[in-house]
Amino acid sequence: MTSAKNAPVCVLGTGLIGGSLLRAAAAAGYDGWGYNRSAAGAQAARADGFDVTEDLTTTLRRAAETDALIVVAVPMPAVGHILSAIATFAPGCTLTDVVSVKEPVAAAVHAHGLADRYVGGHPMAGTAESGWAATDPELFRDAVWAIGVDEGTHAESWSRVVRLALDCGAVVVPVVAAEHDRAVARISHLPHVLAEALAAAGAAGGELALGLAAGSFRDGTRVAGTAPDLVRAICEPNSAALLEVLEETLRVLGSARDSLRAEQSLADLVATGHDARKRYESARRWEITDVRPGASNWLEDLRAAGKRGGVITRLG
Amino acid sequence: MTSAKNAPVCVLGTGLIGGSLLRAAAAAGYDGWGYNRSAAGAQAARADGFDVTEDLTTTLRRAAETDALIVVAVPMPAVGHILSAIATFAPGCTLTDVVSVKEPVAAAVHAHGLADRYVGGHPMAGTAESGWAATDPELFRDAVWAIGVDEGTHAESWSRVVRLALDCGAVVVPVVAAEHDRAVARISHLPHVLAEALAAAGAAGGELALGLAAGSFRDGTRVAGTAPDLVRAICEPNSAALLEVLEETLRVLGSARDSLRAEQSLADLVATGHDARKRYESARRWEITDVRPGASNWLEDLRAAGKRGGVITRLG
Repeated sequence: MTSAKNAPVCVLGTGLIGGSLLRAAAAAGYDGWGYNRSAAGAQAARADGFDVTEDLTTTLRRAAETDALIVVAVPMPAVGHILSAIATFAPGCTLTDVVSVKEPVAAAVHAHGLADRYVGGHPMAGTAESGWAATDPELFRDAVWAIGVDEGTHAESWSRVVRLALDCGAVVVPVVAAEHDRAVARISHLPHVLAEALAAAGAAGGELALGLAAGSFRDGTRVAGTAPDLVRAICEPNSAALLEVLEETLRVLGSARDSLRAEQSLADLVATGHDARKRYESARRWEITDVRPGASNWLEDLRAAGKRGGVITRLG
Repeated sequence: MTSAKNAPVCVLGTGLIGGSLLRAAAAAGYDGWGYNRSAAGAQAARADGFDVTEDLTTTLRRAAETDALIVVAVPMPAVGHILSAIATFAPGCTLTDVVSVKEPVAAAVHAHGLADRYVGGHPMAGTAESGWAATDPELFRDAVWAIGVDEGTHAESWSRVVRLALDCGAVVVPVVAAEHDRAVARISHLPHVLAEALAAAGAAGGELALGLAAGSFRDGTRVAGTAPDLVRAICEPNSAALLEVLEETLRVLGSARDSLRAEQSLADLVATGHDARKRYESARRWEITDVRPGASNWLEDLRAAGKRGGVITRLG
């Protein structure tokens, strides 16, 4: 049995996030290897000196033999298939994931009987690019990494997952799955939806409008450049939470439309939006100290701290 | 009478756009001076060595005496006051503006009897900052500058305005006022509206949501950091065109909501948005050559070229 610190990492899916994680972990001194569904992706990783193959079975047997931390880094639609293989070949390993939504992953993990050693994760990092070619060992530097503190979380497994996130350069926000999913609907999935709608509105103005477009349009549509399948794989599994905030936003925009029509005024929308942006700009992370995994009320305490903007920057 | 090339420039309003224009023109060898309503703003400009005062009358008398090109660079709500003064003290000068909307300015110019030598303009540049402190002589470098080619445009005045824009480092898109206003509703004013709504949705998620926010939220809300009065002064005078595209966007988002609810699918929205963004990314400016102000059909030819994405990069 290896020590938690030096336990190897087995990454399943070496696209932008999984591949960057494998590189960041290697740079931090972890022994690591991976699996990738596409031969071309695995080949690209091997060309950069990483041990990545298309052989899921062998990859997982090695994880089981070495007590590796397994990281599921495939899009949501592929999660079920990967969990089936884990349940067959490495059911005893500590398990985390970097999927953009947490409740559906947790439900699938439970359905596959893998809940005991599972701790959900979601690094808030990415670009409009995808695939091994876009990977970067520094992708998680100073990023926020959401890590589950749901009821029943196993303290040792949790510590291993948190340590990996910290070693990749991130800070950790402790959050339960349902709250994570509601939060990311607001700050990740809604931005995708609005960016797609804005891009469509601009292009409907033809060459003239696109030719006049400057910074506000470029920034506001940036994530519409993300591959469509990836955007759908990120947003659609979070439909319920996304629907709620999309309805809310339709009401806000509908009121702005009414006010613009009746009084040529955007006063309320602009005041609210500007206050909100200032609140975002001035939000300061604070460090959650004295984290004691397994101590009395540790999960409740971490949940409360995460809700108030606290982050974990080190483990004792 | 000075030659067009060396004719001085009189800038009314030395905030971000007007102040940057004064600096860029000076750097390009123009003699220039300005007026600013606030004493603090004028003082800041003078501290940087620019001839800017709060005395509108004297500023305009000097423009009349030197046949200067007058640039109106105040927000739309202040345009009427400025035009009254021009009509009184410098009615014969060539006149342009850098206001974000063109039909309301043109209407005000007509109402003040100043239409003969007026050529509307709008440099597509800016930041979330404002005031003299934010000015930058390089603000217009490689930016697009929309310049009017409306019926009745005076060829010599038009050439002077185009030359100023080119000398500031911009390329020129020829466009009539109504089409300009419809285009900027799509690529400038709607981005502001959506950014405000997105910021509000994020902040409604509290510290947790704001703490998890990463690139997509930061970029999508950037322009919500602009001063509320400035956003309103930019968007509200273009209410009619903005309403049209806001209605269109509400329909697009409403369809996405329906599809998400019924089928957990964002397929249509994401496909449309991604195509649109790719079209924007791949749009290439092409140079309108052989521009002959005053020649037969010159305005029609320039209008047609502008619609197809053409830009003017030099004058013969």
